[in-house]
Amino acid sequence: MSMKLYFSPGACSFVPHSLLETAGAAFEPVMVKLHKGEQNEPAYRAVNPRGQVPVLVDGDATITQIVAIVTWLDAKFPEQQFLPKDPFARAKVLETLAWMNNTVHPTFTHVFMPHKFAGTPDTQAELKAFNGKTYAGLLQEIEDMARKAAEKGQPFLGGDKFGPLDAYALTLLRWGGFAQIDPEGYPALWAHVQKVAQLPGVARAIERERLQINLYKAA
Amino acid sequence: MSMKLYFSPGACSFVPHSLLETAGAAFEPVMVKLHKGEQNEPAYRAVNPRGQVPVLVDGDATITQIVAIVTWLDAKFPEQQFLPKDPFARAKVLETLAWMNNTVHPTFTHVFMPHKFAGTPDTQAELKAFNGKTYAGLLQEIEDMARKAAEKGQPFLGGDKFGPLDAYALTLLRWGGFAQIDPEGYPALWAHVQKVAQLPGVARAIERERLQINLYKAA
Repeated sequence: MSMKLYFSPGACSFVPHSLLETAGAAFEPVMVKLHKGEQNEPAYRAVNPRGQVPVLVDGDATITQIVAIVTWLDAKFPEQQFLPKDPFARAKVLETLAWMNNTVHPTFTHVFMPHKFAGTPDTQAELKAFNGKTYAGLLQEIEDMARKAAEKGQPFLGGDKFGPLDAYALTLLRWGGFAQIDPEGYPALWAHVQKVAQLPGVARAIERERLQINLYKAA
Repeated sequence: MSMKLYFSPGACSFVPHSLLETAGAAFEPVMVKLHKGEQNEPAYRAVNPRGQVPVLVDGDATITQIVAIVTWLDAKFPEQQFLPKDPFARAKVLETLAWMNNTVHPTFTHVFMPHKFAGTPDTQAELKAFNGKTYAGLLQEIEDMARKAAEKGQPFLGGDKFGPLDAYALTLLRWGGFAQIDPEGYPALWAHVQKVAQLPGVARAIERERLQINLYKAA
């Protein structure tokens, strides 16, 4: 059964993209150019009516949403232990993954796509500024996680193995550059992200997406 | 091992609350009065530093986030099949659960707590109005799910068994009343929610939270 991943460079689809590359999976990467509006074309709406990435197609199964795709890939590649086997450790990773996905990620959406939340330019400008500050505080929570992991010699945010929290953390810290947030303000997280970026599977996903990890430009 | 659920009446903690009651679980319900700011008191911050509900305490395990708690309860009460056993059906339920949690729920937060996203009263008023309309459209997506389930004789949103999608759908449609959205505008969803509200476990959670399901008042 062949797999396809619909992704957009730098989007949260980087999470399943880097997991698939880490697993050495055979899959067809299909790029969706959000800046050209390809997600709104009928061909893509037939794949995902909500017009979002990522979408994983695995044989007859079409799955959207990071949490669902990650759980699917965890079951498909059990040797990778993308989610911990221990039930409590697994619950805590899902807890943080859900929080990144329902809190940190949507906060950034206010900075990057304020038109999703308000119609007038002044309001959109206020949303960008207000939520950029909120976002910096949420990245500090991830910095605290990275620092605690480093202090106890735990190599990855979810435990002993690379997993979705590490890939999402890289994505979220990278997005900070669009909000004038300097990654060097988060030293433990920045060190972790730079280490993760050099893992062979992650590096292959970065290369395909042509990502520059540090997008910050001093004002 | 004793369980505790920290909940607030009408909040999304209704999801695990109704699952625990459906399973006939022995647990201590602990009410957190958000309108009195109890979530900001040091005693509660010691339980959940983010000051949110729900929190499930199961012996030594403290778990937050709907997705993580639901997965935990699914494993703890396998006979309930809160999540389908079939891997693809399970992935699709997690997909919809994640979407409710990262899209529908946060959209409502703009209506109910606009101060989380903007500081000035005019902007907050615009957020309420704009996102109230978005919310109505998202409820229509859940209406479509309920209608399709009814058309194929499927009793619950996730399949043959009551589960988190049904409890979340009830919560989200109920919240619509705060945004001047009439549940009767969503006939399949409203019929489903009224049916779900009469399940014995769900009814016990509704009674403890003293919830009125239809909060809509015609202008």
